[in-house]
Amino acid sequence: MELFLTENQTDDMRLSVRTTRVLHHEQTAYQELVIVETPQWGRLMALDGFFQTCDRDEFVYHEMGAHVPLLTHPDPKRVLIVGGGDGGMAREVARHPGVEHVDLVEIDGRVIECCKTYFPQIAVALSGNPKVHVHVADGIQWVREHEAEYDVVIIDSSEPIGPGEGLFTADFYASVYRCLTGDGILVAQTESPWVNADVIRRAYRGIRQSFPITRLYTCAVPTYPTGLWSFTLGSKKYDPLEADPEARIAALGRLRYYTPDVHFAAFQLPGFVAEIVAAEEEGR
Amino acid sequence: MELFLTENQTDDMRLSVRTTRVLHHEQTAYQELVIVETPQWGRLMALDGFFQTCDRDEFVYHEMGAHVPLLTHPDPKRVLIVGGGDGGMAREVARHPGVEHVDLVEIDGRVIECCKTYFPQIAVALSGNPKVHVHVADGIQWVREHEAEYDVVIIDSSEPIGPGEGLFTADFYASVYRCLTGDGILVAQTESPWVNADVIRRAYRGIRQSFPITRLYTCAVPTYPTGLWSFTLGSKKYDPLEADPEARIAALGRLRYYTPDVHFAAFQLPGFVAEIVAAEEEGR
Repeated sequence: MELFLTENQTDDMRLSVRTTRVLHHEQTAYQELVIVETPQWGRLMALDGFFQTCDRDEFVYHEMGAHVPLLTHPDPKRVLIVGGGDGGMAREVARHPGVEHVDLVEIDGRVIECCKTYFPQIAVALSGNPKVHVHVADGIQWVREHEAEYDVVIIDSSEPIGPGEGLFTADFYASVYRCLTGDGILVAQTESPWVNADVIRRAYRGIRQSFPITRLYTCAVPTYPTGLWSFTLGSKKYDPLEADPEARIAALGRLRYYTPDVHFAAFQLPGFVAEIVAAEEEGR
Repeated sequence: MELFLTENQTDDMRLSVRTTRVLHHEQTAYQELVIVETPQWGRLMALDGFFQTCDRDEFVYHEMGAHVPLLTHPDPKRVLIVGGGDGGMAREVARHPGVEHVDLVEIDGRVIECCKTYFPQIAVALSGNPKVHVHVADGIQWVREHEAEYDVVIIDSSEPIGPGEGLFTADFYASVYRCLTGDGILVAQTESPWVNADVIRRAYRGIRQSFPITRLYTCAVPTYPTGLWSFTLGSKKYDPLEADPEARIAALGRLRYYTPDVHFAAFQLPGFVAEIVAAEEEGR
């Protein structure tokens, strides 16, 4: 028997990974949750058919989502993660000795529980880490109910369809602006420049409406559609291009993707990606 | 009917693209050649089942293979392309006003003919461009028979199995060294850091045996396995990190991936990729 788990990355493109075992499969209150064992990428979790996280490449997305804003801000103490139920982002945030309090607000408690069981290395910060506070709640409402409280907010959402949809709107970004401190930073995952240019444009425009500094950066995630992934960063004060990541990198322990040089290189956008942003900057 | 062309990227991972029409299919003297029409990527050519080139992303690989060495060398006049039968690399090389003579040596004449027919935008430099000289011949032998003749040699090969195999050996790189002028530069495509670390190590080691400056760089090609692709550059004199790409970029016309900033960013390797090179540097 040849068993493959297939993601329909678009209507016209599919990525399939050989699967030796289905570890878990359920319909939660929010989405279809599948966890499989694969020879290529280790254990892999899919939500509503989209590959979300897997053992062997998760470090790329999580390191780039966490360390770019946390090493841009000179002294982040309080961090909010919206989504991120697998725990990888919380693990990377918790590496920072200066961070005192992390709130992780995930709408689907089943994702958290299943990741604790099947991805112990990724979910390590979700149990027994005194800095990390896990809340099963609606991120949109959480953000609305908190004001001037976080130095960094990371939107670690799934696709902009399904439960993640409301996390890509200008209203939501304005709400994040208010829940940040006076020099706070927002980072949101904003999909692939190849097949989701519309998502990037919408997020960039929405973030730019609230934040004086808006910057797009990319990283290479092999199990995400097209392998090229983007984050959009909004900042009230600190420019990631003027950061000094060398100063605090040593305290983080061994990283596998992020380096101080990669920090700056990630903002050097390929021409066609720079054009997506330029079109938005010029109101085209 | 749902028709998908599938590449077995590894034994355990498959990329499939919806296909509306098979434009061409033959067994040449060297390999199975397939050209299809796809809604996702435009026309796409596969050789022995591996996706080689397609309309919508070919600019990434070709711009990064050509402009990095050609803008590192201060005055390249003579260029050799080994492989590259689709013509994309020749098109990018021919953009440089200073380049006077390009030899393209492709072993499989059928690739050249079919690309002229089905990829007119990619193969544009293969017909009627007075600078570009197309030779249907064995690249290994060609390199052996030429000495101190080229300023830049680009190895635009297929996978290191099948006809491309001999293009990944230390002997071949030594032979390329001899066919370069005294300050010449070699660039070779060296596969994905995620699934072909062994290929990168072997190429890096082989090139380093001949060239005093050896550097790995990456770019993001969505239709290649894992989406992250590498080139290894060997240089007799000029370091790509000390290049001045701004000086001659304007003469090249509109590019879609390469920019002077991307030139330098491409050499800032993600941690796990830097480790592949470091292991080789330290003889581990």
